[in-house]
Amino acid sequence: MEKVRRIERVVALTKLLVDMPSRLFPLSYFSERFGTAKSTLSEDMVTIKQALQQFGLGTLETVAGAAGGVRFLPRREGEREQAVLQELAFRLKEPERIIAGGFLYMTDLLFQPALMAQIGEVFMTRLAHLRPDYIMTVETKGIPLAFMTARAFDLPLVIVRQGSKVTEGPSVSINYVSGSTRRIQTMSLPKRALPVGARVLLIDDFMKAGGTAKGMADLAMEVGAEVVGTGVLIATAEPQRKLVEGYTSLLMLHEVDEWSKKIDIRPIE
Amino acid sequence: MEKVRRIERVVALTKLLVDMPSRLFPLSYFSERFGTAKSTLSEDMVTIKQALQQFGLGTLETVAGAAGGVRFLPRREGEREQAVLQELAFRLKEPERIIAGGFLYMTDLLFQPALMAQIGEVFMTRLAHLRPDYIMTVETKGIPLAFMTARAFDLPLVIVRQGSKVTEGPSVSINYVSGSTRRIQTMSLPKRALPVGARVLLIDDFMKAGGTAKGMADLAMEVGAEVVGTGVLIATAEPQRKLVEGYTSLLMLHEVDEWSKKIDIRPIE
Repeated sequence: MEKVRRIERVVALTKLLVDMPSRLFPLSYFSERFGTAKSTLSEDMVTIKQALQQFGLGTLETVAGAAGGVRFLPRREGEREQAVLQELAFRLKEPERIIAGGFLYMTDLLFQPALMAQIGEVFMTRLAHLRPDYIMTVETKGIPLAFMTARAFDLPLVIVRQGSKVTEGPSVSINYVSGSTRRIQTMSLPKRALPVGARVLLIDDFMKAGGTAKGMADLAMEVGAEVVGTGVLIATAEPQRKLVEGYTSLLMLHEVDEWSKKIDIRPIE
Repeated sequence: MEKVRRIERVVALTKLLVDMPSRLFPLSYFSERFGTAKSTLSEDMVTIKQALQQFGLGTLETVAGAAGGVRFLPRREGEREQAVLQELAFRLKEPERIIAGGFLYMTDLLFQPALMAQIGEVFMTRLAHLRPDYIMTVETKGIPLAFMTARAFDLPLVIVRQGSKVTEGPSVSINYVSGSTRRIQTMSLPKRALPVGARVLLIDDFMKAGGTAKGMADLAMEVGAEVVGTGVLIATAEPQRKLVEGYTSLLMLHEVDEWSKKIDIRPIE
C-alpha cells in the first residue's frame, strides 16, 4: 500500500513540476498538498531528478534557504538540442516554402505548439545565464516562439506593437527601419508593460539587418529597461554585420535561390 | 533495483506524456525508448492514470487498435476550473486596469504563460466535443491564449492578420466591422494556412458585438473550411445579441464604470 502511494505521489509531483517549467515550488507547498513530510518529499525529488537526467529530459534544481524550494529546468542540450534544430532546418528546406521576393513561408512551423515548446527550451538553455526578468518580442509571427521561451523561463512576455495602439494606455513609440522592407515604420510599447530597471531578453523569429531588434532595444531603453541579450530563431548570413551586437541565433540562412528552389539553412552549434 | 527502475521509468513516462498534451503516443514508441515490454508499460499507464485522477491533474486516455496508443488529456473541470476563472476575474477587477474609453488593460495577464496554459486547458475541456482540426485566432492579444488552447488540443494554430500582408503568398481578405471601433477593417488569411474541409475552432480574448469573430468565420468559409465553434475568454453582457451564435465564453463582463472605478466581471459556470 505504502509503495503504491509513493509511486502515485511521484507521478503527481512530476506532473506539477514539469507543467510549470522553472517555477520555484517551496517544499511546504507539496507538503501541505500531499500531507507528506518534507524529508520524504526530498527523497522523492532525488528520484525524480535521477529519472529525468537518466533519460535526458531536463533536471530538477534545489534552492536552499527560507525562500528556497525545487524547480524543473527544461534544459535541452547536446543531441536533444541538435535533433530539434536539424528537424526544423529540414522542414525549412521544402522548396514550396519559397514565396515571391525570396521570402520563406514558415508561419505553419512557428504556430506548432509542440515544436515551439522545444525551441523555447533551447533558448532557455542557451540564454539562462543572462538572468532576464522579461522576454520581449514584436508582433506577430514571433509571438508563439517568444511565449514558449517565456514559459521555459517562467517569465512574463512583453509585446511591442507595430504602429501605435490606443487601447493600452500611455505608451512610447519609436521609428525604425525594417531590414526586409527598408521603410521607416513605427513600433510602440505601453509604458506600464515594463518596470524601470527590468532585465529584458529580446526574442524574434527572423533577423536580417537587425533593424527590428535594434528598434525593440531602443524602445526598452526608452522606458528605462536594460536589454541583456537577443535571441533569434533564424539569422541571415548576409549582411554579416547586424545592427545589434552579441545576438544568439539558432539557425543560419545562407541562401534562398528562387530559380533552383534551393534553400541553404543550417543549425548553429 | 527493479523497483527503482520502475519508478524512474514512470517519472520519465509522466514527463513525456504531460509535456505534449493530447498527443497520441503508440506504446511501441515507449517500448523502444525504454526497452520495456508493452504489457509492463500498460501497467505503468494504469498507475499514472490513477495518480493523475486521484490528485485531479487530468487523465490518460487509451486508444485501442493498430493506430492506438495513450495520451494525456489535461482536463480541467469543477473546482480546478472555477479556481482559475475566479482568480482571473479577481485580477481583472483591479481599478487601475481601466483605460480612458472604458477599456480594460489585460495584456499583462494574457501574456503570462502559466495562466494561459490553464485557460487553454479550460477551453480544451469545454470544447473538445467539437472535434476541431485547427484553432484559429486574429492577431495580436489573443495569440498566446489561442496558442495554449492549440497546445492543449495538440493542434496547429492559424492566425488571421489584420490588413493584408504580402510575405505569406496568395491570401484571401474580407472586410469586417470591429465592435469596439465601429470602423470597417480588413483581415486576411494565407490560402495555404487551411485545407478545404478543415474543422476550425475560433478562439479570441474578447467579444463585444462579435464582429471580429464573424469576420474570422467568414474568412474560414471563404477558404472552404468549416467553423465548428467559437470560444472567447471574455464576452460583454451588452449587446446581448452577438453577430455569432453559440459561442462559449469563460467570463462575462457586465460593467466598467470609469467614475466609480468598479469593474463587474464574473466567471460563467
